[in-house]
Amino acid sequence: MRFVVIGGDAAGMTAASHVRRDDDAHQVVVIEKGPHTSYSMCGIPYFVGGEIAEADDLVVRTPQEFRERGIVVHDRTEAVAIDPDHRVVRVRDLRTGGERDEPYDRLLVATGAHPVTPPVPGAAALGHIVHTLDEGEELRRHLDEREAAGAPRVRRAVVVGAGYIGMEIAEALITRGIDAILVDRTDEVMSATLDPDVSAHVATALEDFGVTLRLGESLVALHGEDGRVTEVETDRGRIAADVCVIAVGARPNRDLAVEAGCTVGDGGGLVVDARMRTTVDGIWAAGDVVDSHDLVAGRPRNVQLGTHANKQGKVAAIDVLADQRGERGAARFPGVVGTAVTKVCDWEIARTGVTEEQAREAGLDAAAVSFTGTARAGYMADAGTVHVKMLAERGTGRVVGCQLVGTGNVAKRIDVAAVWCQLGVTVQDAQLMDLSYAPPFGGVWDLLQVAARKLVRELGLSPEL
Amino acid sequence: MRFVVIGGDAAGMTAASHVRRDDDAHQVVVIEKGPHTSYSMCGIPYFVGGEIAEADDLVVRTPQEFRERGIVVHDRTEAVAIDPDHRVVRVRDLRTGGERDEPYDRLLVATGAHPVTPPVPGAAALGHIVHTLDEGEELRRHLDEREAAGAPRVRRAVVVGAGYIGMEIAEALITRGIDAILVDRTDEVMSATLDPDVSAHVATALEDFGVTLRLGESLVALHGEDGRVTEVETDRGRIAADVCVIAVGARPNRDLAVEAGCTVGDGGGLVVDARMRTTVDGIWAAGDVVDSHDLVAGRPRNVQLGTHANKQGKVAAIDVLADQRGERGAARFPGVVGTAVTKVCDWEIARTGVTEEQAREAGLDAAAVSFTGTARAGYMADAGTVHVKMLAERGTGRVVGCQLVGTGNVAKRIDVAAVWCQLGVTVQDAQLMDLSYAPPFGGVWDLLQVAARKLVRELGLSPEL
Repeated sequence: MRFVVIGGDAAGMTAASHVRRDDDAHQVVVIEKGPHTSYSMCGIPYFVGGEIAEADDLVVRTPQEFRERGIVVHDRTEAVAIDPDHRVVRVRDLRTGGERDEPYDRLLVATGAHPVTPPVPGAAALGHIVHTLDEGEELRRHLDEREAAGAPRVRRAVVVGAGYIGMEIAEALITRGIDAILVDRTDEVMSATLDPDVSAHVATALEDFGVTLRLGESLVALHGEDGRVTEVETDRGRIAADVCVIAVGARPNRDLAVEAGCTVGDGGGLVVDARMRTTVDGIWAAGDVVDSHDLVAGRPRNVQLGTHANKQGKVAAIDVLADQRGERGAARFPGVVGTAVTKVCDWEIARTGVTEEQAREAGLDAAAVSFTGTARAGYMADAGTVHVKMLAERGTGRVVGCQLVGTGNVAKRIDVAAVWCQLGVTVQDAQLMDLSYAPPFGGVWDLLQVAARKLVRELGLSPEL
Repeated sequence: MRFVVIGGDAAGMTAASHVRRDDDAHQVVVIEKGPHTSYSMCGIPYFVGGEIAEADDLVVRTPQEFRERGIVVHDRTEAVAIDPDHRVVRVRDLRTGGERDEPYDRLLVATGAHPVTPPVPGAAALGHIVHTLDEGEELRRHLDEREAAGAPRVRRAVVVGAGYIGMEIAEALITRGIDAILVDRTDEVMSATLDPDVSAHVATALEDFGVTLRLGESLVALHGEDGRVTEVETDRGRIAADVCVIAVGARPNRDLAVEAGCTVGDGGGLVVDARMRTTVDGIWAAGDVVDSHDLVAGRPRNVQLGTHANKQGKVAAIDVLADQRGERGAARFPGVVGTAVTKVCDWEIARTGVTEEQAREAGLDAAAVSFTGTARAGYMADAGTVHVKMLAERGTGRVVGCQLVGTGNVAKRIDVAAVWCQLGVTVQDAQLMDLSYAPPFGGVWDLLQVAARKLVRELGLSPEL
């Protein structure tokens, strides 16, 4: 079998490695546009901030290392067209400009996503994007520049977009001693993932750390001279800046597959089944480019996370191998519940399931409770603060969402709520589970179980503990 | 209704408060042997170590505060007999020695557990026990004593018993600058709760912190003069010591209930149903004194933890109130899976379900996998070390146990495995759940999912990701 993979990061290289390990007779060919394979995109802000010393630290395996494992990696090579009838991918060598055909028996589209550049003057020419490792290196080089007298050239930065990456970059800049101004067109930070009452705590944490927030401001233009930004213009005025980082999200790189006939889903990614097959015979897709089934909202959703890309790459590879034997793959990707975590300025932020707004959009009749607790027993030193919000569906009582923001050991606690969301566990059952307790880790009632108890009451369910 | 509760800590006061809140007409009477109600027993080692300044910090609510809420609390009063036919508890006022009868309509036995004193010469007279807050205060007073010249009188301590409390006390002593020697008759620390390969990591952590371990040594006698210990004798020799703390476990305070006709279970605690009814009409029991159903091992187990005591107290109270209306309580205690966590010397220790030995005892055919990972992404600074062990049942593939030991943010991660154990989730399903990922909190595959994947392979199950 000749298995061709377009895209050499998490989903693609996971699948390539799995198929290659199955049988040395398989020809496995990877087409990768950039110079790197298999690196941690999520680690880039930490590299920019300097916590991670070298870009290479983020690379799990280089193209050469994959080649030594028998995988043919064509880096700096772009796939320009797929011909599904003749099972051929047209590729272009970006160094020489030469084009050629790569035939395939089975194809995996793992093309990821591309960052959105706002359609305003100067954005493309003067703004920094930090989506690929190359771009992260470029930003860091820029921040490292010194003036003749030795002072850093970059003292003031504007970051556009207050989502995960924008916040992480803002923190990295402050850590480097650079003034950071974080601009977002919505009135909240993390407006896509947290409810406003929860994200307000994150905004306070950012401000306490030294980030200047300018919310409810839309980018109008970037101004500069000699190829460098000097001012960032919003609908509320001009902000002087030595650098501007744009982090307003990313869209699935789906065009190549769409031109080959693959269907796009309501989430904006490619439609795949639970075995990661697209709607075109012989083509699978995995990672940031696909829609996943949101188990809570009951609808497709494009979620761009390395953890899903890895799992989906595996599931696709298992099905590719089974398909070759005339079978169906034993693995099925079960869907997602929207679990995500990050850390900003010693605050941990975690969420799973739906927010109140997302519940309404999905037609879920959900009740929400919020309260503030501690990460350790209240009588311990440094007990920490945790803001907890949980949502459950009226009628069924199943947990449908949770948001946690706090200091101390908070983020990974979301996984319990994620499992509850994934399995449709009710608040009545949740409140009585055998979760761990010791004073260094919380009170005698786990925070998530306190939330479940409050929801039992709020929903008028029984038993009310 | 006259509701009498014997025992004024977690289970008892939770039930008393719940019943009292239901209706002011209920007479709620609590009989408590000691001077305190509702305090955190688990916090005592931190009080001994000085991290918690005052004993009062551990008290959630005093007898007087409960009285202000309309609960009659008889502190320093001991229940000496129950007459279930006449529904009367015989009590003794420990200050006056006077006895009287307290009639009840419904009775809750929440008598907790009592620490075991080894039957060796000198143990009762010279050893310190730290089970009650009084005893914690007594130990701390002893450690605070100074010689005429101002030097601390206690410089060297022997702690007998390397379970949770023994380890926590040993750490507290080291923190106070006291040499601590930890003795256990088994060859491992935490032998009751961890497998030897996992507890070996904990032993190393204790030694690195400065605790001297003497394992495989049995206590023979305590020697002393003027009421103070001077030497602790084991079957391997004598150890000079200024104080000796004995922490070799606790047994359910069941005699009172047994004499009233209540049945004892295979775990050594009182038999109760899911609504916390004992086998005697009109008597409920909750907390450390009862056996709980172990959902993984499928057998009764006496687990002494405040978190269960609280939940069971609630469940009992709900059934007491329902019983008064001629109904059954809506709440049922679902059982336990043996989740427990602690922190010793910056190492977090967590476990749930069965160990390999417990699996064998329970007749479970389980496979185990072990590996060492990191608490953060491997390329992050201070990635931490986590030793992971997970067990799954052959055939069904359900997760039946997990042990985590490590530095960094480890302990509360056990809750995901606890939920898997509680719900009988298989390793195949576990490996594909939507758990959180970001570099500050781990790799792209969650540690528990790495374990689940390894178990899929180990058990020869499909799909093997």
